Amino acid sequence: MHIVFHPIGVIHTPYHDKAPYQPVEADEGDFFIEVFPEYREGLQDLDTFTYIYLLYFIDRLNREVSMKVEPVWAGEIEVGVFASRSPLRPNPIGLSVVKVLKVEGNTITTTGLDVFDGTPLLDIKPYIKDLDSKKDANYGWVEKTGDLRHLAMHILGIPHEY
Amino acid sequence: MHIVFHPIGVIHTPYHDKAPYQPVEADEGDFFIEVFPEYREGLQDLDTFTYIYLLYFIDRLNREVSMKVEPVWAGEIEVGVFASRSPLRPNPIGLSVVKVLKVEGNTITTTGLDVFDGTPLLDIKPYIKDLDSKKDANYGWVEKTGDLRHLAMHILGIPHEY
Repeated sequence: MHIVFHPIGVIHTPYHDKAPYQPVEADEGDFFIEVFPEYREGLQDLDTFTYIYLLYFIDRLNREVSMKVEPVWAGEIEVGVFASRSPLRPNPIGLSVVKVLKVEGNTITTTGLDVFDGTPLLDIKPYIKDLDSKKDANYGWVEKTGDLRHLAMHILGIPHEY
Repeated sequence: MHIVFHPIGVIHTPYHDKAPYQPVEADEGDFFIEVFPEYREGLQDLDTFTYIYLLYFIDRLNREVSMKVEPVWAGEIEVGVFASRSPLRPNPIGLSVVKVLKVEGNTITTTGLDVFDGTPLLDIKPYIKDLDSKKDANYGWVEKTGDLRHLAMHILGIPHEY
């Protein structure tokens, strides 16, 4: 079974050649989404939400997908690919929660996300209080690594090299 | 640009012919995911998470996609499709946050979600505290409708007919 999707826009970030999370000088306005003009009307009322989900196609992969991954920052720990947010997955669909800063015409300015500039956008969904914000969520296996500091850098969008 | 994905499994629900959220008798164990055997190892450590994201292909659509949608329960309000969770979207990728109840072999038992039985699964991702649970999220335009009661039914998984 083949499932075919088409990009609805493009994500712009300061990550051109360097991998995301390598240090870059990022200013507000460096992260924005251009939705193709035919989808512009679909953005109506999007700016009433504090957060949105972005779904995108992770198109710059150069390694094989494997069912087990070893997050580089997690030491010797090996976990299943579906228990990870590794970009190397059977269907490379990326998911990020970002804040909406501004919607103007077909452009959405957002807070940072760790994708390469030019990443094809697949969908935008509102992130809805209670429905999506689960107060009793946990850190899963990440907590076992003790490296919540690294996770915090991702959460806060602090560039780092490991 | 064509982006091609393949199902990694199937979502099972009690919603066979009736639309999701029509009343059904649902018991614990009625919602489960079968991941195809070749992806079974990718589930390792998934059960360390309280919540997971499911991404799936919304394959049973019978209406045209439009840039503006009028959620039936929201009265006269018309919003952009990307400011809605309508299944009728340019790329019909569904996203649900569910609780993991049990992982056994290639089967994951979860709390309820509103998709038809047999829906093709595209990806599973861990829902990670802080990274995904945004305390300052809001209800966006939904709040304006005053119909937070309806939203609550979705959140609590209470079947309803409108």
